[in-house]
Amino acid sequence: MFQTYDDPGGPQLGRKHLPKLRKALKSAGLDGFITPHEDEWQNEYVPRAYDRLAWLTGFTGSAGAAVVFADEAAVFVDGRYTLQVRAQVDETLFAYRDLVDGGPAGYIRERAAKGAKIGYDPKLHSPDALDRLQAAADAAGAVLVAVAKNPIDEVWDDRPAIPTAPVVSHPEKFAGEASNTKRHRLGDGLKKDHADAAVITSPASIAWLFNVRGGDVARTPLPLGEAILRSDGSADLFLADEKVSAELKQWLGNEVSVRPSADLAPALASLSGKRVKVDPSSASAWYFGELERAGAEIVRGQDPVVLPRACKNDAEIEGSRKAHQRDGAAVARFLHWLSTDAQTGKVNEIEACEKLESFRHATGQLKDLSFDSISGAGPNGAIVHYRVTTKTNRRLARGSLFLIDSGGQYPDGTTDITRTVAIGRATPEMKERFTRVLKGHIALARVRFPKGTTGHQLDALARMSLWEAGLDYDHGTGHGVGSYLGVHEGPHRIAKLLNAVPLEPGMIVSNEPGYYKTGGYGIRIENLQVVTPAADIEGGERPMLGFETLTLAPIARELVVKKLMTKDEIEWFNAYHANVREKIGPQLDGDAKAWLEAATAPI
Amino acid sequence: MFQTYDDPGGPQLGRKHLPKLRKALKSAGLDGFITPHEDEWQNEYVPRAYDRLAWLTGFTGSAGAAVVFADEAAVFVDGRYTLQVRAQVDETLFAYRDLVDGGPAGYIRERAAKGAKIGYDPKLHSPDALDRLQAAADAAGAVLVAVAKNPIDEVWDDRPAIPTAPVVSHPEKFAGEASNTKRHRLGDGLKKDHADAAVITSPASIAWLFNVRGGDVARTPLPLGEAILRSDGSADLFLADEKVSAELKQWLGNEVSVRPSADLAPALASLSGKRVKVDPSSASAWYFGELERAGAEIVRGQDPVVLPRACKNDAEIEGSRKAHQRDGAAVARFLHWLSTDAQTGKVNEIEACEKLESFRHATGQLKDLSFDSISGAGPNGAIVHYRVTTKTNRRLARGSLFLIDSGGQYPDGTTDITRTVAIGRATPEMKERFTRVLKGHIALARVRFPKGTTGHQLDALARMSLWEAGLDYDHGTGHGVGSYLGVHEGPHRIAKLLNAVPLEPGMIVSNEPGYYKTGGYGIRIENLQVVTPAADIEGGERPMLGFETLTLAPIARELVVKKLMTKDEIEWFNAYHANVREKIGPQLDGDAKAWLEAATAPI
Repeated sequence: MFQTYDDPGGPQLGRKHLPKLRKALKSAGLDGFITPHEDEWQNEYVPRAYDRLAWLTGFTGSAGAAVVFADEAAVFVDGRYTLQVRAQVDETLFAYRDLVDGGPAGYIRERAAKGAKIGYDPKLHSPDALDRLQAAADAAGAVLVAVAKNPIDEVWDDRPAIPTAPVVSHPEKFAGEASNTKRHRLGDGLKKDHADAAVITSPASIAWLFNVRGGDVARTPLPLGEAILRSDGSADLFLADEKVSAELKQWLGNEVSVRPSADLAPALASLSGKRVKVDPSSASAWYFGELERAGAEIVRGQDPVVLPRACKNDAEIEGSRKAHQRDGAAVARFLHWLSTDAQTGKVNEIEACEKLESFRHATGQLKDLSFDSISGAGPNGAIVHYRVTTKTNRRLARGSLFLIDSGGQYPDGTTDITRTVAIGRATPEMKERFTRVLKGHIALARVRFPKGTTGHQLDALARMSLWEAGLDYDHGTGHGVGSYLGVHEGPHRIAKLLNAVPLEPGMIVSNEPGYYKTGGYGIRIENLQVVTPAADIEGGERPMLGFETLTLAPIARELVVKKLMTKDEIEWFNAYHANVREKIGPQLDGDAKAWLEAATAPI
Repeated sequence: MFQTYDDPGGPQLGRKHLPKLRKALKSAGLDGFITPHEDEWQNEYVPRAYDRLAWLTGFTGSAGAAVVFADEAAVFVDGRYTLQVRAQVDETLFAYRDLVDGGPAGYIRERAAKGAKIGYDPKLHSPDALDRLQAAADAAGAVLVAVAKNPIDEVWDDRPAIPTAPVVSHPEKFAGEASNTKRHRLGDGLKKDHADAAVITSPASIAWLFNVRGGDVARTPLPLGEAILRSDGSADLFLADEKVSAELKQWLGNEVSVRPSADLAPALASLSGKRVKVDPSSASAWYFGELERAGAEIVRGQDPVVLPRACKNDAEIEGSRKAHQRDGAAVARFLHWLSTDAQTGKVNEIEACEKLESFRHATGQLKDLSFDSISGAGPNGAIVHYRVTTKTNRRLARGSLFLIDSGGQYPDGTTDITRTVAIGRATPEMKERFTRVLKGHIALARVRFPKGTTGHQLDALARMSLWEAGLDYDHGTGHGVGSYLGVHEGPHRIAKLLNAVPLEPGMIVSNEPGYYKTGGYGIRIENLQVVTPAADIEGGERPMLGFETLTLAPIARELVVKKLMTKDEIEWFNAYHANVREKIGPQLDGDAKAWLEAATAPI
């Protein structure tokens, strides 16, 4: 089993480790230190060995920071984690503060003593974030000091091993394009921008550019490493020696020099006089400092891999279709179990997770989950970022809703699906709200839109029916998804927040409106869908983009209030289920197959 | 009659005036000159006496520019005006160039000679636009020279009189709030921003802040003038002497000093050492230059009047309702005429305009049109910014559609309405497309949305049904509207383009999706609607904003394909028509009343 159900954080960590850091700071002549959640690759899922914030405070959320002074300290979290931080961090040691409103910079401005020396690790902060911290320190009359080695690492006695999973090839049948054509294409792009090279610091970009995958990070096959891509298409790839095999070197070919991680700094120094593209949203301040020191001319701009990685090619889309057929059958088996054995009221959230993982495992092709399943029974379903532990584990009680958001990593694709089902009998309110969420989902699945349309233009379609009833949900509607890569991938997004990136053919995006009744239940319906190429519509004048739904599993038809649905919506729903039956049916037999027939019958 | 049907531009103007300007430039020692369309108040409708671009080139569109050198010149227009510029400007004198792509700055960068002195009038350029021109001149090695007096004005022999319409009071029963409470409220806002004063340069802001109206600009009751508002609520108001009466001074009260226009520059100079708010989107570079020279500290920020002016108070909303009831009856009489007398196929666009204006005039309260009516028969309806002249005038032929977009200025409110009707028999395609436009209109009329929602989030609702059929329209969906003020008013907007201003209660906005078949016909359905205060919905959890439709006139029910409409849409359509009948019916009698009954019967 991939998923575990322990709580890796807790207040005991802060109690034990904060004094250690303070001692280290004192001997280093520092009056304070700033620790963000991010590691040096800006990973969303940070390997334990790099989760310095968890070590220091006990807080294990996916975003946060801490600032430590000699006599006080604060932990910073956003609105999603105000409950979790209370459970995981000792408030006699760390004041709770808002990550967004004020944040570490506001705290430094307010609390830093005049002349105080405050350390930071330049590999962990973006240049923009560092500018804000610097301005705050200036205002307080304090001094920011870049440390050469992170003081936490110096005193972290029981630090987990640095991950050194082998980097392996990602076959062309899945990638759809050889690394050398990718590199030459992107190299030509650099020439057009009059850049000599680009520094690539995002592990997902490394994975895509060189057609490799790694195992350094849980839930995402990322190879932690860096690269310098030159405008002639050749590249240096920096990887820890332990991760590199002879096969890998052969796979990478002559134009890629595999070099040890220690060579990165000298390689940056050798870019003196060159025009070098670096992405300030993914590369830390350290890169900018090294390149400036080297006398390189920095071209700030988006990592050139980001857009081509997002726009999947035919092989990647076909791989995703296959992964979803396989995954959909596993999910259907699970939904069958939920609608039969799990209707007793005695099954719990962890058992449900394990059952689903076992069905996925039985496909024989599961490489990992694509994230820890969110398995929320009753009121736990209303916690949007819920992760079940042995402490929070609830039974799927009769008369409640159960929400499960999960996904698998397969060599041909990454899946992400949410289904909500009734355990026992659902109330009329539950059904009415489920139907509104479904109407939003369908609006975003069916929409056609002209080239140039961005995600924030479409977001309201998924909310309209909830808005009509005075309801809404406080998360985005859709995120990008990688191809056997990150389950959250930019640059596109469907959300209220501005996003200037037009949706382009081949982009995979989730469609996941929801409704959450605090203390009651949660509803979310999520499919992945891929932007389809511009197609002429009969009688139309402008070629329109649209979506093809990739995810294949029944949506609880017993929760649908048909009279709230329009003719077009019912038609979409029935056609979707017919497609699910056609693609998934042949993989099932016996009771599960009979169940699928009923679960996908027209309403 | 307010509207005229002549063409005030044409190539003869450029032929006559370009040599005059070149001569004036030579004697002033200048090698070139830049002329934008804007006047010094950034007016949308520029009084003839300030339309220097029309005088110089013959081009009369609402946006544009020209750059003149000794041996060449260019005129710049955007995509809306590529046909019009060919008709109005002699291309042997002016090269046609794109206003957006490259624009005057691109032309200067490319064509200006090294060392050339290029004049500009600092009162006519925003600071941002000037920065772009300056960068272009720097790149070309040319020098920009601010002129003290515009050289066009020096040689404009037959210049129309500078408008000096009296400035008059706008009674509190319409304004809903006394000027002194507005001034003190905004003064307190300045204090919060640590500003000592704000320079107000927008005539619409002057009108709102002092509860006055003017007559300097056609179609909008703007008083051309400027003001300095101080944080204690007192103000200086700069107006040409001819516009000021004793009654006006009494209306303005003790806290407002009315000063002649010539006092503006010295008054700015006296702000030395003060923190002064100026809006770079409405105030020209001249203000920034004067204030810098004076040693004032400039606070760049939005004109403090903009947001309160947009959010109408109860009296303004009630005024708008009354204006729309009155205007709706006039429009209904006109629609009755269209559906009877004008069905012969012999009536033309100008006659239709005059008929509509006469019905509005007959209300006894029409102060002006709110813009020149767009009266488009057949293919002319497909020209989005069409203005009928005696040269373009077409008959309303049988078997075609007729589109008319028009509005009135009443003391209690400004109206803006578009209706499309069939002359003779409409084709099935016309009806199908009309219905799609209507479905978009209804989606945007019915929507409820949470506080914080901006116009670009809602825009897609109005397009969805067209997108579904491979269709779209190339204009925004909604613009703000003033209260007996500008028919186009910011800061909010409903469009594809980003707009970061949330919709707030009291904002009036148009809802005007359309469809245009070039060479065939145009369809647009436009009502004004006001954002309603947050209201609880039964069973809902979040207070939601919504819209109340203000415009009251039948929408051609004979063009609706009922089977394309949902139950909810039909319900909205019938309820709207019932409301129209109730509010407008009592003002009509005889045939018109009978026609209204039929035109508003349920579908």
